[in-house]
Amino acid sequence: MAVKAEPSFCLGSLNVSVTLHDTNRKRLCKSLTEKGVGAGAIIVLQGGEETNRYCTDTALVFRQESYFHWTFGVLESGFYGAIDVDSGKSILFCPKLPEEYAIWMGVILPKSHFKEKYAVDEVHYVEEIADVLESMNPSMLLTLRGVNTDSGSTCQEAVFEGVHKFKVNNTLLHPHIMECRVIKTPQELEILRYTNKISSEAHMEIMRKIRPGMKEYEMESLFQHYCYSKGGCRHTSYTCICGSGKNGAVLHYGHAGAPNDKVINDGDMCLFDMGGEYYCYASDITCSFPVNGKFTNNQKIIYQAVYDASRAVMKEVKPGASWVEMHRLAERTILLVLKQHGLVQGDLDEMVKANIGALFMPHGLGHFMGLDVHDVGGYPEGTERMEKPGLKSLRTVRHLQAGMVLTIEPGCYFIQSVLEQAFNNETQAPFLCQQELQRFMNFGGVRIEDDVVVTSDGMELLTCVPRTINDIEAFMAKAREAE
Amino acid sequence: MAVKAEPSFCLGSLNVSVTLHDTNRKRLCKSLTEKGVGAGAIIVLQGGEETNRYCTDTALVFRQESYFHWTFGVLESGFYGAIDVDSGKSILFCPKLPEEYAIWMGVILPKSHFKEKYAVDEVHYVEEIADVLESMNPSMLLTLRGVNTDSGSTCQEAVFEGVHKFKVNNTLLHPHIMECRVIKTPQELEILRYTNKISSEAHMEIMRKIRPGMKEYEMESLFQHYCYSKGGCRHTSYTCICGSGKNGAVLHYGHAGAPNDKVINDGDMCLFDMGGEYYCYASDITCSFPVNGKFTNNQKIIYQAVYDASRAVMKEVKPGASWVEMHRLAERTILLVLKQHGLVQGDLDEMVKANIGALFMPHGLGHFMGLDVHDVGGYPEGTERMEKPGLKSLRTVRHLQAGMVLTIEPGCYFIQSVLEQAFNNETQAPFLCQQELQRFMNFGGVRIEDDVVVTSDGMELLTCVPRTINDIEAFMAKAREAE
Repeated sequence: MAVKAEPSFCLGSLNVSVTLHDTNRKRLCKSLTEKGVGAGAIIVLQGGEETNRYCTDTALVFRQESYFHWTFGVLESGFYGAIDVDSGKSILFCPKLPEEYAIWMGVILPKSHFKEKYAVDEVHYVEEIADVLESMNPSMLLTLRGVNTDSGSTCQEAVFEGVHKFKVNNTLLHPHIMECRVIKTPQELEILRYTNKISSEAHMEIMRKIRPGMKEYEMESLFQHYCYSKGGCRHTSYTCICGSGKNGAVLHYGHAGAPNDKVINDGDMCLFDMGGEYYCYASDITCSFPVNGKFTNNQKIIYQAVYDASRAVMKEVKPGASWVEMHRLAERTILLVLKQHGLVQGDLDEMVKANIGALFMPHGLGHFMGLDVHDVGGYPEGTERMEKPGLKSLRTVRHLQAGMVLTIEPGCYFIQSVLEQAFNNETQAPFLCQQELQRFMNFGGVRIEDDVVVTSDGMELLTCVPRTINDIEAFMAKAREAE
Repeated sequence: MAVKAEPSFCLGSLNVSVTLHDTNRKRLCKSLTEKGVGAGAIIVLQGGEETNRYCTDTALVFRQESYFHWTFGVLESGFYGAIDVDSGKSILFCPKLPEEYAIWMGVILPKSHFKEKYAVDEVHYVEEIADVLESMNPSMLLTLRGVNTDSGSTCQEAVFEGVHKFKVNNTLLHPHIMECRVIKTPQELEILRYTNKISSEAHMEIMRKIRPGMKEYEMESLFQHYCYSKGGCRHTSYTCICGSGKNGAVLHYGHAGAPNDKVINDGDMCLFDMGGEYYCYASDITCSFPVNGKFTNNQKIIYQAVYDASRAVMKEVKPGASWVEMHRLAERTILLVLKQHGLVQGDLDEMVKANIGALFMPHGLGHFMGLDVHDVGGYPEGTERMEKPGLKSLRTVRHLQAGMVLTIEPGCYFIQSVLEQAFNNETQAPFLCQQELQRFMNFGGVRIEDDVVVTSDGMELLTCVPRTINDIEAFMAKAREAE
């Protein structure tokens, strides 16, 4: 007799059991009850709505809101979800679709379909939400309201007809669900391993296929195609950054105002920062390499500085390590190499005091990653953003814990406006070897970005691409031999 | 001496001069002044704003709002634009970017850069908009407010600090700019030819590469990759519809709830509706063919019915032709072939009266296409949507004029819920040969969608893909011979 398969999601080659969300819901209820809050309460979340381009009827491909996805894994728009905190009972509310839907969008699926697909205890229509919740006689409803510390935006609190009948608390839930998201479960890690595997392969495909004379956007297109066709990643985690030459110094290059439209010239360094997304779980990988497969001496200097920083940090990653200290370690490692090659001068401690590190690496060392590429939880209550250049860009200042997933992404860039300002700054100028630095003004930059999981005694590296200068040169040479 | 190139846009292989927008602005001012409206007035439009995924800092790739693009061609977010109706003088207002922008997003470009890039008369900062407009002492400001007849949504009217100081009219502008968009200029047609060429090639690439056992989404990915890497189409005009087998009967298949995730099985008919977008100009093409390259007898019947309808309509397209009559012609042509093959029975006129056509083709024959895939202007003042099934889905009921661009997309589908209802409808059931139709219940559907320009004495076909049964079989066989 055929055994009925467990409800799961599968678009590429990874099957994800929806029990992932049951585990998440249980963790959330446990977190609340352990703190003695939420007795008799019901959590109510509102899923994402479909959006159109401006006032047209061109619908964007729907992508679920991350908190809702974490909790319920629902792929469709217009849902609500509820959890009884005491019992853990889970309820979904699906939209009641008009008859015409069957013609345009497909067979109208019954509530029983969603109950099975998402393995929840009950499914009702959205229009029934107030009645269903009322019948459960909750002490209060817990809705989600809180600030995303990367965007500064507040998340959309659940609103529905009849909500005024209930006592609603919109502050209790946020810190708990956010903190649950920070520590990844084994099932979540499995997906993050997969997105990293697919995205690593896609980066390598680019290193094989890239040639001088191609356009940057061709590489974006190839990356997306690989991740989607081979891995089922319909979305990327963020807009692809395909900077070559000088564009490598624009940290978020690739946006509509600078749309990866340059020809990649022989001799250019490439800085490609791209990640596929599977089942809403992100990856975030940067590969830096010379388009022609062979590092120049200047390229070797900068690449080695960043590589040394990356690996120095990785050695120190373990529970209890301070992310701020890791950032400082990366800065110092880069400055040390730059000093060895005569690009900066003077005492390293003095340089750090004068914020010389942030001139070359104005961004933070890395960030949490999960359902969002800049994942939530970087600044929980009681933590504060620092003020110094570089450090103020850190997306978290926390100490590491097992189960956290982070990017480690040191970089070294030559940003004209930043360096010119520093040349005129009497505190900073003495540390800068201007004449030598001029050689690098059109260099662009190098970033090496890997995704890691903090384990009980160190870390697991999720990203798997050629990283040393020798490995990159050998890998690219091999791909070119065949020609 | 090097001649300075004219300001233009180029991402793929088509160079678009920004004089396109100057022409559009002049047409708009002329349309207003010819009607004796807008003397002394200034048109003020607000461009699109960047949007993020929910409350995160993950920015979606910005795509300009279509009215603003038509008027100014600005690629970046956060702009405003103004036109002095009497003189035609054009002014852009660009956002003043913070210093930090240079690190994250690239060099901060001066106003002079945008003046040159977009070939306008003046550029100021957004924050100066009220002062600049006030100094021009306009009789009133004309802002854009009107309903999109496909979505039912109202477009975003320009709002800025200080707008209260002006007399504002938000009704005059909309019908004029909408009507200007309906009739395409030679420069616009050139882009539409290009998007059609690239997208046609992409469809053919799929017909070459497709094999039974592949997933539908692999074809979506391949289409996007072709259009982007070969044609510079970063966006598609709409979500790719890659229905195979039964999914061909879901008109807007491919959305998040039905995400092109089926395996394409040997024997399946494919219905792939996809179009690339270049410089915001759309294409909208559907190819229907058997995955294995060889039509079965049943597939031949349905395909031929739709093909005959498509070509019957094309013969009649010319200025003055009624789109409603074209729709009726397509319906009758399809029904005639179905009758010849014993799928329906009875008198053709009686069938039309009983709405039998709409059972097999519930959508309209086609729609305007331009900057939006369902382009504006389908129902100007004085026109009304019809009530009969099929006809009520028409996105326009207008008579054709030279310069209009439309899709011609007859289709024939076997939608279970629709047919089952008809079998139980005493007016419709007598026309339906139930037993024969049962054979087609898992067939899916066929749609043949081409884009055309109405010319002074007929039409120009923009789409170029194999269309007859013989052509498709020959094309697919040739691609398979090489193996």
